[in-house]
Amino acid sequence: MLRFVGFSACVLLAGMIGMVQGDPAPGKAESTQADSQRLYRHVVLFKFKEDASQEQIDEIVDAFGSLQDEIDTIIGYEHGTDVSPEKLSKGFTHCFMVTFKSKADLDAYLPHPAHQAFTVKLKPILADVLVVDYWTQE
Amino acid sequence: MLRFVGFSACVLLAGMIGMVQGDPAPGKAESTQADSQRLYRHVVLFKFKEDASQEQIDEIVDAFGSLQDEIDTIIGYEHGTDVSPEKLSKGFTHCFMVTFKSKADLDAYLPHPAHQAFTVKLKPILADVLVVDYWTQE
Repeated sequence: MLRFVGFSACVLLAGMIGMVQGDPAPGKAESTQADSQRLYRHVVLFKFKEDASQEQIDEIVDAFGSLQDEIDTIIGYEHGTDVSPEKLSKGFTHCFMVTFKSKADLDAYLPHPAHQAFTVKLKPILADVLVVDYWTQE
Repeated sequence: MLRFVGFSACVLLAGMIGMVQGDPAPGKAESTQADSQRLYRHVVLFKFKEDASQEQIDEIVDAFGSLQDEIDTIIGYEHGTDVSPEKLSKGFTHCFMVTFKSKADLDAYLPHPAHQAFTVKLKPILADVLVVDYWTQE
């Protein structure tokens, strides 16, 4: 009996390891997990027009976040408002980091109807945008 | 004997789980792991002077990467050169993402002698810098 309990515990523990080590893909998670593959990071900064209301800005931030529900090449998404004490943001106030597995996945995202509809919604209140993309190292 | 082997295997497995689940800190890993806690992201963009040599730039990139060996509040570090097809980088060519657990950890990083020495080394070849920090959502 004790031996059986010991065996069962091992099976359970092995299962837990499997869960923890399992596929990289928290898929739509807010952060992306460390992975042995390189990831394609798409970093987007927005500066909104001075007359944009907080409600309009919130709507855009929500709409950006909703893109991951419509575009399945997005495997990671993070965003936040600038809180740097260094005052080197050049007026950019919002940062978005979208993660893809490949350049082809970004290429599918940019012209995607959902992304295009988002940019149409964004433009009236956008003062400036900055984009850099980079590959993570292995 | 079998029971002992079973027990030992469990201890080993439990140890492995501890390693896998352990502190968010693959610490000095290139990417940061998904975590239930919010993380403080420090996003830094550099544009180098036109007369900066590739050797000088590589040296700065390596030096930035080495900061995590000297400043233990850095729990994640990524970097890459801009590969965006959108041409919206405003001349910034290098992106660095440094992750901390708290604002206090950034506050310890900024005036740290190793970071200060890095900025002294950087300045002669730096044309422009942009910094935004944000908190990840839970």
